[in-house]
Amino acid sequence: MADVLRATYDLTCDATEVEGFSKDIAYEQTVEVPESLVPPEIRDRVVGKIQSITPISESPAAFRTVIDYPASHIGGQWPQLLNLIYGNISLKKNIRLTGLEFPDSFLSTIYGPNYGIDGIRKRLGVYGRPLLSTALKPYGSKPEVFAEMAKKFALGGGDLIKDDHNLHEDSFDDFTRRALMCRDAVLEAEKTTGRPTLYFPNVMAPVEELERALAFLHREGFFGILISPFAVGLDMFRYLVEKYPICYMAHPSFTGAHFFDDRHGIAHGVFLGTMFRMLGADVSIFPNYGGRFSFTRQDCHDICDRLREPLGDLASAFPAPAGGMKFDNIPTMSADFGVETVYLIGGALIGYSSDLTESTQAFMAKVREHFNERLEDPDEGFVSACELPSAKAAGVVVNHLPFNEFRWEGRESEAYKDSSSDLPFKNVSRCELIGKHGENTAYDLRYFEIGPGGFSSLEKHNHTHTVICVRGEGVLMLGDERIELKHLDTAYVKPMQVHQLRNESDEPFGFFCIVDHERDQPVKP
Amino acid sequence: MADVLRATYDLTCDATEVEGFSKDIAYEQTVEVPESLVPPEIRDRVVGKIQSITPISESPAAFRTVIDYPASHIGGQWPQLLNLIYGNISLKKNIRLTGLEFPDSFLSTIYGPNYGIDGIRKRLGVYGRPLLSTALKPYGSKPEVFAEMAKKFALGGGDLIKDDHNLHEDSFDDFTRRALMCRDAVLEAEKTTGRPTLYFPNVMAPVEELERALAFLHREGFFGILISPFAVGLDMFRYLVEKYPICYMAHPSFTGAHFFDDRHGIAHGVFLGTMFRMLGADVSIFPNYGGRFSFTRQDCHDICDRLREPLGDLASAFPAPAGGMKFDNIPTMSADFGVETVYLIGGALIGYSSDLTESTQAFMAKVREHFNERLEDPDEGFVSACELPSAKAAGVVVNHLPFNEFRWEGRESEAYKDSSSDLPFKNVSRCELIGKHGENTAYDLRYFEIGPGGFSSLEKHNHTHTVICVRGEGVLMLGDERIELKHLDTAYVKPMQVHQLRNESDEPFGFFCIVDHERDQPVKP
Repeated sequence: MADVLRATYDLTCDATEVEGFSKDIAYEQTVEVPESLVPPEIRDRVVGKIQSITPISESPAAFRTVIDYPASHIGGQWPQLLNLIYGNISLKKNIRLTGLEFPDSFLSTIYGPNYGIDGIRKRLGVYGRPLLSTALKPYGSKPEVFAEMAKKFALGGGDLIKDDHNLHEDSFDDFTRRALMCRDAVLEAEKTTGRPTLYFPNVMAPVEELERALAFLHREGFFGILISPFAVGLDMFRYLVEKYPICYMAHPSFTGAHFFDDRHGIAHGVFLGTMFRMLGADVSIFPNYGGRFSFTRQDCHDICDRLREPLGDLASAFPAPAGGMKFDNIPTMSADFGVETVYLIGGALIGYSSDLTESTQAFMAKVREHFNERLEDPDEGFVSACELPSAKAAGVVVNHLPFNEFRWEGRESEAYKDSSSDLPFKNVSRCELIGKHGENTAYDLRYFEIGPGGFSSLEKHNHTHTVICVRGEGVLMLGDERIELKHLDTAYVKPMQVHQLRNESDEPFGFFCIVDHERDQPVKP
Repeated sequence: MADVLRATYDLTCDATEVEGFSKDIAYEQTVEVPESLVPPEIRDRVVGKIQSITPISESPAAFRTVIDYPASHIGGQWPQLLNLIYGNISLKKNIRLTGLEFPDSFLSTIYGPNYGIDGIRKRLGVYGRPLLSTALKPYGSKPEVFAEMAKKFALGGGDLIKDDHNLHEDSFDDFTRRALMCRDAVLEAEKTTGRPTLYFPNVMAPVEELERALAFLHREGFFGILISPFAVGLDMFRYLVEKYPICYMAHPSFTGAHFFDDRHGIAHGVFLGTMFRMLGADVSIFPNYGGRFSFTRQDCHDICDRLREPLGDLASAFPAPAGGMKFDNIPTMSADFGVETVYLIGGALIGYSSDLTESTQAFMAKVREHFNERLEDPDEGFVSACELPSAKAAGVVVNHLPFNEFRWEGRESEAYKDSSSDLPFKNVSRCELIGKHGENTAYDLRYFEIGPGGFSSLEKHNHTHTVICVRGEGVLMLGDERIELKHLDTAYVKPMQVHQLRNESDEPFGFFCIVDHERDQPVKP
């Protein structure tokens, strides 16, 4: 593909109008002034180029127009991409965006799904059949009720369990407490079943809280989350996917204005298939046909195809038809959607019997009738020793932290037992000075001290370190490079640089370490 | 208003269906399971309450249903609000959201427009007539061309000039260079006209770049920006408005799927009027009727009404009809939209004559014919001495900054001339250690030194300071409180705490100061 973005629009208009209509789009989406006001040089370089106009329907008269936009118009940016493909023209009528082909220059910058179909199957060790998923309902129940549901579903052998997308808490603490309760309930059930069930808490939060939630869940080792990309903002979704490489189940909340009329909007498959997948959905939920929503069988298949089809180097993503799916539908669904599907069954599963474990077993048995399930050992993934365990953050926000003998008033120091895990460290203590006690900072300031012969974990991570030596002398290892740190020497550890701090002297080695408040989990070199 | 969110939906359906349809909405948007699976306690506390169902049309049969949702469902969060009012039901058909009334508990948390109609008028000193605005076009032109256009429009006496919403640059440096060129061209013209023209550069960027752009523009004293809230994400827009208190002109790009059919979507006035205003639009641009877009006169008036009507303590916002507006329309527009309006005229103004200054003068004269213009002295607003001037950031990213006599290898120290401006300081030098040279940090680490008798500006700001004394001794004033800082004493300055650092000793006072990388401008106490 040349370095252009190719957009396909279906236009409902008379044959006499279609040429002018197509040209209007090419101008509106680029220079936004009439042809007469555009210098030829800009016209040639900037205005969209109509590649073809083809009749697709006689009554009502409709045409398919293909327009190429120079790739430079996207600039690698999603907000600008949305503006380019369906910005001003969304405000006109009878223009439906039905296809997108991306230039390699853009596609090669796209992360796409972190896990995708293959990654989720590997984590579960389940092959050869669709996955069964349900939702924690109804909103308004107590956390204990949700945790119990999650456990029962897991005991019944279900694969994925997500929060209801309406589920949210007023406070961050309430959210984390409930999410941990549900996660732990599922882990408890795993001890009985010997198979994993993956839990996806709903994250529905304003900008200020989204990162905090993701950083927390990532740090605590949650496998994935449920999110409504259009409600939180499409580019915010993309940003989270890139920064927090967990698994994302995408909910179509708030997208429906695009699907009211086939003469307008962005087509189902382009929006909930191609775009959601490119933004990073590992699973894309959509309303199944025949239920209480308006999607047709063709709409659903279009989404499935675009989630699974080859697209650059992107992982394929699971379609998850949902809404109005029943026990008796399973044979039809099986024939219709094939193996690489997540069945998201809420009310029908919950209402099937009074015992959710029995219901889940019954649904799973029904699914297995139609497929040849193959089980492998689940891939636990990388289990990191994480950062040194979370500080108790016993302090409160204060203005003054007087210093005395390498202690600060109002801030407790924590000494860690030496570790013999995968990320070993020795003779290390940490004091959280600023950032963990409620301060309004984008960073944390900590004071570390390493005793004689001690060392920190050998590790790497995306976030960076700033280190300032204030007591004794120490060594910073950066890969094979050795940097000796003396009084007030300052060091910077770049993203993903393998590093370790060592004390090779006979006196304590103390240093400030400044890190971003929201940060990723360290991993082994 | 009780503590509920009141949503009005217009439903196109038969009289026999409307009750069930309305009930479906109340359940779908809250518990998302059938009534039979909802315990009575949750039904009473959580499910939406239908207040009324009223016929509004006979053919096609249509009804107006009013539903109250408990305010706790919003939780003060915009993503959850969108999900609640039009999440899943957007995926059904024939449901149009036509009204919203907010609980005080939510409304009182809303910032709304930073300037609004009154603030913009005060800054311009222009009353009694609509404002004239144009756009820099066409995309693809050189920066010098745009700067020249901006200048000519300002010389003609135009009020507001914005970028084309398609205008974007590939690099941040290109963006800031062009924005500054256009801004300076306008300031140049002001010297001639003696009246202000306000310039709004377009910010269309991914999440990672948005804050950077806003922080830059805010710091450089730009009055406002153009932004497409739906393309960058509605809650991201709200977040920026609250964090960077400049003036926001909102573009309707990408919203149009809601306006294709009056039986579906969110009504024009609710979306581009109420919602955009609540999110923080000072000016809301929309396609004028009679031009090349699909809005009707009634749609436009609905938007105007909702931008201007009383709404809690929120400022009212300017409607800015745009698209297809011509010189000859001005009399009609004047009668139709009234005085509190921004006329956004692009192609017709640019194409009116070969000289943009003359065209602008002609349009302004035409506007004045229909109104009684009243001029006052423009309010310059608060002119801050800003932070100490930007460091040259001459360094590059390095791992090791060896320390020697309170200098760090590879980092230049800057001494400032003593200031006698509004925010005076004396005998201060600064060295940018980490954060300004390309490091990937959410914070900047600086070393300040204040000579004997010197002091920093007395100021306050939203961002916080962490200060660590490493040389000599000094005093941190927090309002009237006096904190003496000795070796390695650490201090934290909370948001908006008035503060100043002083050296009352005979030796240099040196300290590290850590600040968020993206931060607001200091203001006078």
